[in-house]
Formats: sequence, structure tokens, C-alpha cells
Amino acid sequence: MLELLMLNLMSKEPLYIQLYKHFKTAIEQNRITKGEKLPSIRGLAKNLAVSKITVEKAYQQLLSEGYISNSDRSRYTVNKFEGIDYETAVAVVATNYQHSPPVEEPKILYDFASGEMDSNGFDFSLWKRYISKVFLNKERLLGYGHIRGEEELRTQIAKYIQKSRGVYAHPDQIIIGAGVQNLLNILCSILKLEHKSIAFEEPGFKNGRRIFTDHAFTIVPIRMKQDGITIEELVSSGTKLVYLSPSHQFPTGYIMPIGKRTRLLRWAQTVDGTIIEDDYDSEFRYFGLPIPALKGLDNTGKVVYLGSFSKIIPPSIRISYLVLPERLLALYHQNSSLYNQAASTIEQLALAKFMEDGHLERQIRRLRKMYYEKNVLLFEAIRNILGDHVEVTDTESGLHTILSVKSDLSARELVEKALAYGCRVALVQDYYLELSQEKLPQIILYFSKIPANEIAAAIERLRQAWFPVN
Amino acid sequence: MLELLMLNLMSKEPLYIQLYKHFKTAIEQNRITKGEKLPSIRGLAKNLAVSKITVEKAYQQLLSEGYISNSDRSRYTVNKFEGIDYETAVAVVATNYQHSPPVEEPKILYDFASGEMDSNGFDFSLWKRYISKVFLNKERLLGYGHIRGEEELRTQIAKYIQKSRGVYAHPDQIIIGAGVQNLLNILCSILKLEHKSIAFEEPGFKNGRRIFTDHAFTIVPIRMKQDGITIEELVSSGTKLVYLSPSHQFPTGYIMPIGKRTRLLRWAQTVDGTIIEDDYDSEFRYFGLPIPALKGLDNTGKVVYLGSFSKIIPPSIRISYLVLPERLLALYHQNSSLYNQAASTIEQLALAKFMEDGHLERQIRRLRKMYYEKNVLLFEAIRNILGDHVEVTDTESGLHTILSVKSDLSARELVEKALAYGCRVALVQDYYLELSQEKLPQIILYFSKIPANEIAAAIERLRQAWFPVN
Repeated sequence: MLELLMLNLMSKEPLYIQLYKHFKTAIEQNRITKGEKLPSIRGLAKNLAVSKITVEKAYQQLLSEGYISNSDRSRYTVNKFEGIDYETAVAVVATNYQHSPPVEEPKILYDFASGEMDSNGFDFSLWKRYISKVFLNKERLLGYGHIRGEEELRTQIAKYIQKSRGVYAHPDQIIIGAGVQNLLNILCSILKLEHKSIAFEEPGFKNGRRIFTDHAFTIVPIRMKQDGITIEELVSSGTKLVYLSPSHQFPTGYIMPIGKRTRLLRWAQTVDGTIIEDDYDSEFRYFGLPIPALKGLDNTGKVVYLGSFSKIIPPSIRISYLVLPERLLALYHQNSSLYNQAASTIEQLALAKFMEDGHLERQIRRLRKMYYEKNVLLFEAIRNILGDHVEVTDTESGLHTILSVKSDLSARELVEKALAYGCRVALVQDYYLELSQEKLPQIILYFSKIPANEIAAAIERLRQAWFPVN
Repeated sequence: MLELLMLNLMSKEPLYIQLYKHFKTAIEQNRITKGEKLPSIRGLAKNLAVSKITVEKAYQQLLSEGYISNSDRSRYTVNKFEGIDYETAVAVVATNYQHSPPVEEPKILYDFASGEMDSNGFDFSLWKRYISKVFLNKERLLGYGHIRGEEELRTQIAKYIQKSRGVYAHPDQIIIGAGVQNLLNILCSILKLEHKSIAFEEPGFKNGRRIFTDHAFTIVPIRMKQDGITIEELVSSGTKLVYLSPSHQFPTGYIMPIGKRTRLLRWAQTVDGTIIEDDYDSEFRYFGLPIPALKGLDNTGKVVYLGSFSKIIPPSIRISYLVLPERLLALYHQNSSLYNQAASTIEQLALAKFMEDGHLERQIRRLRKMYYEKNVLLFEAIRNILGDHVEVTDTESGLHTILSVKSDLSARELVEKALAYGCRVALVQDYYLELSQEKLPQIILYFSKIPANEIAAAIERLRQAWFPVN
């Protein structure tokens, strides 16, 4: 063994590491027999003309990693263990990825499938200033942050939802998270103490549904009507938990009228149930005032309110929030200590100051104006270009609309054709848990990301894709 | 009804909103009977001396919110719905929080219960520069970002774990998340397809255990020995999934020797099982080289590797990562589209560049030096001040150690006494799923957050708390 050992005095690698690596490899490759004694420290040091400390450090590292032991106190012995094949481990990674060809993605000119904003949607220079300000107080950034989210932000959110959504909440009732799914994971852990099933709008928010499925909830789909979910179906389902987006249902776009809201609240009081209100894009109503939140009518603590900033500031800034009624808040406190806060502290503190200085309201006004104009242009373009080929309902809300396309093509074929013409679109049928009963294929068209002056051109592409002139 | 209606022409509130609010309140307070017809638009406009458009807009808002309907096309009718009591909703929030007294928290001078860094631990000015650079490419910040995390960061992580941990992974195998819990939620949704139970080190990482409990896994506690979990117990438990922290077990601090690592890998191959390796603080070994990751020995794709930056950069920057073996990666791809990326894009891109420029390695070297010194000072202080009152093992790794305290006080009483002297400490027993069988109360002491020059003073406080001189 020792014949093979050559230490490189010119190497940048310390001698003890060279020595450690030599023995490690020799042991792994069975060139040193298991149970064999290593040379004594003094003897080896002398043999190699290195200091005893060099040998000691090498042996210590082998000892820490469990290659050798020093049970008899005088000499180190090689431990028994099964062989290791590093080469294969490395090769596995290399070969698996070498041959996977790059996937050919069709070029997307117009993305109707995304509710993201276009590049004029946000003043990043302003945001950068708010991010920079946070660094003035570095102490705040050292740790994990407040488990429910930074207090300044919770205070601003409480003010904001009171003013804009009619929701009265104490900052202590607010829990911040890195996106809605993060909050739903925490919410599930509380709700599962009382519920085994949850009713979801059908079609509905599939990314939310998924989290409940993950937590072993039974999902009960309740069909949508023009005025929201079918209450009779909800009542007869026997479930006492329901997930709603009453202000602008996703994906249908329907708005739940006041009468149905009060009936749902009465239902929750009667069965001692819970309503989760997902208020994901209520800021965007282009006619008149925003529809007040259902939570604002909730005087017996039956509504969990779920809000997100993802439609009003870029979703790369991952901040959403939850308002818990008293009773669930108590359950949260009993269970919460094991959930770390997942949202970035810097972004939380920047957003708090941004809101305090009135920039969020300005941002909403600005986007509302932008999206109003896009909304008008979209409907004009649909009317002028697609005309009788489609049916469309304008709720003058939100960032998307639904097209019912009169075509012999299937919904899936419409998606493919659109893609071939550079347009990505989504399908309502994909938001159903069960099979959709659509008479016509229904297409979701987000307009937020399409530049205003290209909306007509984008719709023209859809026409070429779906209704080519022969 | 109309007698009461006074529009305030001097108000900043638009006339249509005043009109809308008047009707809304009147309907909610039953001052207008359900089913009653509202005045005609023309008639009301004339009566109030306002334009028809003002009345139309007010009615339109009432219509959108479902207070009225226009089924007969000529006149609007008030809808039937149950009464609303806004006042109570507001009052509920107000009263519940008015009287809750502020909780009196004892003043913490020394926090031994937190693995956060002290204020010299990170160069925030440098980090701020990297955050600023990200804003040069605003387009990257507009959307939700890559579902698995930004590619630049995954590439840097692949390089980093290869160099520092001996883990070979392709960037496509890496999934970024906002903290370990976020990633475990996604991992659970894949693993539950194949596993119903998971073995955890006992004592072990309770925040991780919690996520598996949430996902309805049965937790099988496997007792820790000095060289890691008891393999015989694991084998006889029949579970095929195990969560390990082999490089520096939490909380015991034990290091798993190479022999046990290979036996565990062989076990996973034999039963077609899965090992989750949580490599949470392996950067910190103060003697010799870091212990290589178990994942580096994994040539049959049985190990899921879980890494975190929370110990090397401040945990307010929430970025962790997961390396999935091939087979689980395929399952992930089938299921992943419903999980949004939760980590901030700005922080991901800043970290990628920070790593590319070598700053992460510099930061680790710097912290390792700082923590090495603290580690030495801590053991000196324990020996000199607590002496024979305690037993302690130094693994020369990580940011914490375990004190076995020879005292008649219970573990809980030791925590209380320490708190009264301004020291927060945590207990090993709280990391057990079942009852711990500790002979002596075991205290977790993190030293990362205690300033070096106050370590002796902090330990002296523990002595005063636990072993007062009468």
C-alpha cells in the first residue's frame, strides 16, 4: 500500500487532505483489507517525512467519516462496510441527460393563457427604491421573520381590505404566505380537524383544489350557475366547507349577487360550516365600484378570506394573505408553531412601506385604467373579427373572459391550432374536476399580457387559426 | 323613499355612487320592500335634476351586485334576500381585540434556541448590490417565474453541491422552493403515491415530520444511536421511506459513519425504498473536511437530497432546494404543473449571480471561521463555568451542541430558570415524537447568534440559573 503513496508537495491541496484521500480511495476500492490496522501515526509520519500532525489530521477525518475506528486506542483499524461505486453514481447523471433532446417549444407571440402583466404594468424603478430602503434596517433581515408575516405588512393589509373590500380584520387575524398554495397548506392542516370534504365550484380553481386533494380531503364539485354555485347541490352534498370566488368566479367570470351571498352565509351559520372566499382579482372592475367581499357580510366568523397581490403587482413577488375568523385563529395558534414563514422578509417590508405611501392604490388605479382599455379593445376585436363565430359575455371585471367557439373542432384542437398561429390559450374544461358538459368549446382568454396595440392582431391570429378563409 | 334622498353636490364622492349607496342601504335595511320596482331612470333623473347616465350607473352597480334585477326590461325590481347586519360584523372585530392585553414576554438577552446568525454574519451591502443588479432585466420579474425555479440558480446549485457535497445532479433534477417545508409539501404529493408511512429519526426534525403528518403519512420513529438510526428497527418496521440527516443529525449532532451509509443505501436498493437526506448544515465542520453527502454514494437513484441556504445566508431570504432522482422526477413532472414556484424571483436571480461570482463560497469560509471560534469559546466556557454539572459531546460540526444537565430540576424547569435569567434554550425532548427516555435533561444550545465576546457571560447566566451558589 505505502509504495503507491506519493504526496505532492507542490500541490495546493494540503498534505493531510492528500493523505486522507489516498486512504479513503484505497479503503473504498478494497486495496486495504477491512479490519486491517493502519500504520502508526509516528511510523507513517517518519516514513513520509511529514509532521505527525499531518497524519493525525488525515486519520481524524477518516475517523469522522467512519472509515476507520480507534477502538484499541493505540492503532486505527479499517472498518467493515460494503463497497462503493462512485463512478456509476456520476455516470448515471451524465448519461441520463446527455441524450435527452431539447424540447421544441412552439414560439408564443401572444399568451392568452397567462394573467401576468405586460412590461408597462409595474414601475420597477420605484419598487427597487422600496427594496433598497429595507436594507437600512438590517437587523430585521437576520432571522426567519415573524411566523405570521411582518407586522407592518399585516397592518397595511388590514387597512387595505377594509377600505377596498369592506373586510374588517385585526392585523393579528392576518397570516401572510408565499402565494395562495402556501397558505392553503397551512389552512388545510387546521380545517382537516373539522372537515373531511370540501365543496368546490365546478369548474373552479384547480391549483387550490390540488392542495386539498394532497391533504386527503374529498372534493365535492358543485356546478356553477350564472349567479354562482348551485346552493341546493351544496346543501344536499352534506359537506360543510366550501371554496368560492364570489366576486369574479374563476374561470367562468360569474359574479355572485347579494341575495346568494346572504343565503350562503345563512347556510354556513345553520350547519356551522366554513366558507373560503378567494378574492383573487376583485380590484379589477371596469364599470362602477368593486363588488364588496362576502367576508364583509360575515358577522358570525364563518368566512376565511384569501387575498393575493399576484394580479396587482408582479407575481414574482410572492405575497398572499389569509384572514382567519376567531375560532380558526385559535386552532391556528395551537398548530402554527411548526410552519415557518415562507415569504421573503425583504419583499414583505418593502410592500408594507409601498402600501403605506399610497403606491399600491396608485398602482391599482393605473392597472385598472390599462386593463379597462384592453378590455374594451378585446371586445371590439372579438366583435369585429370573430363576430358570429363566437359567443362571449362581458362582466367588465378581471383579466380574462370566456369565448364559446362555434366550431366543429374539439376544444383541444382549437388549442393546437391557436398554438400553431403563435397564440397560447387555456380551456375551461381543464378546470372541471369531472367531465364538462359544455355544448361549445370554451376558451379562456386573458388579455392582461397582450400589449393594447396588438390585441386586434392577436385576435386576428385566432381567426386565422380557427376560421381560415378557404 | 325619495323624500329622504339628498345628493351632496359638494361631496368628492361622485353622484352615482351617492345614489347607489342610498339604494343599497335602503334595500339592506328593508326600507324598500323586496319585489318593489325602482323609479324609472328617466323619472328619477328628472326628479333629482341629474343626468340619466348618473342614474344608469347607480342602477348598473346595484344590478352587478345583485340588489336589483331587470327581468322585465323596462323597470328595475328589488331582489329578495335575507337581511344583512354590517354593524355586527364590524363590532365583532373591534370587541374581540380591544380587550386582549399585550402578552408580557420575558426579555431575551441570549437566544440559544435559534440557529440564526448574528449581525456580523452577512454582508448586506454586498447582497443589496446583487439584488439591485436583478432590476437591470425587468422582463424576468413580470411573471410567476419558472415552476422549478430560475434556471441560473439551478445551474449554480448543481455546481455547488457537486463541488462541496460530492452530489452529482443535472440542473433539471433540481427544484427550488421557499423553504424546506414548501418543498416537502410537493415531495409528499409524489411520495404518497408509493408510501403510506415514513420513518423519522427519533428525536428528529419536527417541522419536517409535521408536513408528512399533514399529508396523512404514518410517522414511524426510529431511535437514534451514536452512529445514526437503528437500522434493525428500520428494517423490522417494514416502512420503505426514511428521513435522515446523516452529516450532522438534528438535534443529537451525531454523524453517520460511512459503513452505516452504505448499509442504508443497500437497504433502499433491496426494498426499493427511498431515503430523504436533509443536509441542513453540513457546511459547518470545524475540523477537516465536510462529511460528503450520502447522496454522493447513491448510484441507483434511491436518495432525495434536500438542501437549504438558511444557515449560510440569512433565512429571511427563503430559498431551499430538492434534488430528485430520475424516477421521482418523472412522477414530479406528471404532477407538478399545479404547484406554483413560491420563492421570490428577485432573490433567486440575485443568489445565482452571488454564487457565480464566488461570494457564497467566501461567505461560507467567513462563517465557518466565525463559528469555529464561537464553537471553541463555547466549549471553553462550558468546561470552565459549568464543569462537572454537565456532559457535552463536541462533534466540531454545525451551529449547536447538546448539554446533558446533571440537575434535580426537570427539563422544563431548566428552560424556565434560564428564561428568568434572560437565556432562551430549547429541549431535545421536544423533538421526540414519543416520550424521550433521557436519563438527564438534554438542552439544545445554538451558539450562532451569541456574539463571540459574550459567550462566556451567556454561559455564566445559565450557571446562575441552574446552579446558584447558596
